[in-house]
Amino acid sequence: MANDKKMVEDITSMDVDFAQWYTDIVKKADLIDYSSVKGCMIIRPYGYAIWENIQKILDARFKETGHENVYMPLFIPESLLNREKDHVEGFAPEVAWVTHGGSEPLTERMCVRPTSETLFCEHYANIIKSYRDLPKLYNQWCNVVRWEKTTRPFLRSREFLWQEGHTMHATAEEAEEETLRMLGVYADFYEHELCIPVVKGRKTDKEKFAGAIATYTVEALMHDGKALQGGTSHNFGDGFARAFDIKFLDRDNTLKNPFQTSWGVTTRMIGAIIMAHGDDNGLVLPPAVAPIQVMIVPVQMHKEGVLDAARSVRDKLKDKFRVRIDESDRSPGWKFAEYEMKGVPLRLEMGPRDIEQGQCVIVRRDNREKYFVPLDELEAKIPEILAEYSAALYKDAFERRANMTYTCTELDDFIETAKNKPGFIRAMWCGDEACEIKMKELADVTSRCMPFGEEPCGDRCICCGKPATKLVYWGKAY
Amino acid sequence: MANDKKMVEDITSMDVDFAQWYTDIVKKADLIDYSSVKGCMIIRPYGYAIWENIQKILDARFKETGHENVYMPLFIPESLLNREKDHVEGFAPEVAWVTHGGSEPLTERMCVRPTSETLFCEHYANIIKSYRDLPKLYNQWCNVVRWEKTTRPFLRSREFLWQEGHTMHATAEEAEEETLRMLGVYADFYEHELCIPVVKGRKTDKEKFAGAIATYTVEALMHDGKALQGGTSHNFGDGFARAFDIKFLDRDNTLKNPFQTSWGVTTRMIGAIIMAHGDDNGLVLPPAVAPIQVMIVPVQMHKEGVLDAARSVRDKLKDKFRVRIDESDRSPGWKFAEYEMKGVPLRLEMGPRDIEQGQCVIVRRDNREKYFVPLDELEAKIPEILAEYSAALYKDAFERRANMTYTCTELDDFIETAKNKPGFIRAMWCGDEACEIKMKELADVTSRCMPFGEEPCGDRCICCGKPATKLVYWGKAY
Repeated sequence: MANDKKMVEDITSMDVDFAQWYTDIVKKADLIDYSSVKGCMIIRPYGYAIWENIQKILDARFKETGHENVYMPLFIPESLLNREKDHVEGFAPEVAWVTHGGSEPLTERMCVRPTSETLFCEHYANIIKSYRDLPKLYNQWCNVVRWEKTTRPFLRSREFLWQEGHTMHATAEEAEEETLRMLGVYADFYEHELCIPVVKGRKTDKEKFAGAIATYTVEALMHDGKALQGGTSHNFGDGFARAFDIKFLDRDNTLKNPFQTSWGVTTRMIGAIIMAHGDDNGLVLPPAVAPIQVMIVPVQMHKEGVLDAARSVRDKLKDKFRVRIDESDRSPGWKFAEYEMKGVPLRLEMGPRDIEQGQCVIVRRDNREKYFVPLDELEAKIPEILAEYSAALYKDAFERRANMTYTCTELDDFIETAKNKPGFIRAMWCGDEACEIKMKELADVTSRCMPFGEEPCGDRCICCGKPATKLVYWGKAY
Repeated sequence: MANDKKMVEDITSMDVDFAQWYTDIVKKADLIDYSSVKGCMIIRPYGYAIWENIQKILDARFKETGHENVYMPLFIPESLLNREKDHVEGFAPEVAWVTHGGSEPLTERMCVRPTSETLFCEHYANIIKSYRDLPKLYNQWCNVVRWEKTTRPFLRSREFLWQEGHTMHATAEEAEEETLRMLGVYADFYEHELCIPVVKGRKTDKEKFAGAIATYTVEALMHDGKALQGGTSHNFGDGFARAFDIKFLDRDNTLKNPFQTSWGVTTRMIGAIIMAHGDDNGLVLPPAVAPIQVMIVPVQMHKEGVLDAARSVRDKLKDKFRVRIDESDRSPGWKFAEYEMKGVPLRLEMGPRDIEQGQCVIVRRDNREKYFVPLDELEAKIPEILAEYSAALYKDAFERRANMTYTCTELDDFIETAKNKPGFIRAMWCGDEACEIKMKELADVTSRCMPFGEEPCGDRCICCGKPATKLVYWGKAY
């Protein structure tokens, strides 16, 4: 049992130092490793398997909604990046520049893609000629690079993995519909697969994507009360289409610019999972994306029949669940701690006495429920337990968020709340960017989003006191 | 019918200009597009879907053989690339260099990975401590960059997609076993899924990978008689492990360097498919990786009941096959030509008379067989037809290769054959690199591989006449 203790002691408690707790988990749950490539991460098998599960579910949803995958070049020539003014201003300061191929200097330097709007637009200009070519619903899974000064694994790294959807439509209405549809896909994924509640809403102009006319976002709240932007969906109107001279012959025989969207989520999602569900024993994974859903730990493994029984359970379950068995000679206690650290949703214990009684013990990662399950009912019972567990994870996160969401109508109260109570603050805003900047100065918060479907909580701007119609979620953010 | 003709006329015949035929197919089958990023390609949805199918099958095989996926950084610091001497000499001349992050010059320039041995080694040095940590069986799906001077879509482009397996083993024997096991996975994939016969063998030292002690290859023969290196598997011995100071404490309590392999296949496979199976009507896809396996073309579509019947067939088949229906108002003839161009394995035609008789017509892409299939037997019959078709594709390619493989025992005959008869030439070699270089000068061929399991065809080197024990496949190569 000495081993178990050591393991647990190795993680900093989140109340003592949240940042260190996070770093401990990404390392000790074997999610990442560092390398001599500063600001980039090595995603280790256990971390990458989470990403593969995320990809698999989202990719299926994208395809169900009519999208096709493509692959664009890694590089963007400087002149191409420069084509849309707002966009280049947003990204140029943080791109990596390739200047040489082999020993020869390039005639034009190229950046490593920070995002691929410009490449998609150049391609769309080639392939869109008629209304018959629309909509174009493309997506790409790839790596992108943004030269961040301060980096943290998953949350902000110089290279990260993501998907970027880029679509073109005949009308502004269709583009807006698509933008919101994909935001809906993200929100649904967060809530139903990752068990993380999100606030869906629109970004203020100050916070929107470089070149977009509207950016929508899903915002999640982490354990420490900081917000995390979970995914964004942008409506570009026809701005890029004009800059890139993309035109189609419409039904009415006139040439028009199509309307465009883009939307993306990244490996940052793994950071969100860690900080929304994790605890002082380690990672806590939602079943939908857990690389191992059920870990079988044989107890008194060397007694006759135990290992055979455990293997036969594994074989029975392996086509339906991601199940493993730990046959190593570590103690059961060590294994319990290890798979808690790794956030495995269910631990299935089997000892000689259990086997005699034709049952096993299933313990949830949150240690709130323990189930004695007859071996011949496992296939039916495990999905129920996983569903209960997912619901519990969501409920916990939902209640935590509710307890950390404040509504303020007075500036003093806002500043006091922002200072002492981590979380979201709901407050009205007049729409003036000056007030947003001032709130940052006064309370060190940014506007996270203007939520959909929530009633105003007043009629005056929290900052300037002028008439206000916009409800805003404010917070400190990752 | 004017449309059909136009379509077919648009492709250059492969006998007239093979290179142009290839270029026509990649463009007209919508596999790729060009962009302002010179030497890189845009992989369009139809091309990318082929790659996704390749990935899906291979990834499952890698996992079945115990491999795990990881993700390494895109960049390699120059000092890291320089750690293994042969390796850096092989790659440094063709890497893209990143010199600036935003507006600031980097303190050390970094290349965009041309391959990731160095990154894997640095990581392995961190995580391998004991024999208990071995073997490490990692794989990565990613993009890599090599600054090629002359490029061709799929075959040689500055950026391409691939997988790179990198494994570490306690003994030299295990590493050699792994190297050959993965070569076997590639050979099996080529032959059984892509229907392309390959010669498995070992590369000469001149042709082996930079830093490897042995490189194994699968070599395929294209329609024009040129060879294509289909995939390679490398045994590194402990050379990299020494250069990167990777050590493990073995069972006998001594520190040892582990033994290493790497192996990879790339989007080049799509080029192999085009050039091994394609014809003057376009692409010819093996069913295992075809994005659409069955294309339903309704005939006299606007007659009552035709479209409904076609849709009900689609719905019945869609969970078992990749099936589509073309409901556009193009003529059936136009559609026939279009899906021939796109290499769809089976075309399923249904007109009013067929429907009356409760049947449909299935035509294979090679137009050699036409099947009248009762609608209620489709689910059982299609797998049979696909299997027959796959076998026919393989047989064609196998016979073509047999007809284009020559055995030479005299130098004059070799030179004459190399000049006039495209294909493989089998001939003996003494093992001296000077003879390899001379064969290139005399006959413009390179050694493709020393095949496994074939009898020598003589006992003298084709070049110098000295005693020789090595049989070599020679050829011109992509």
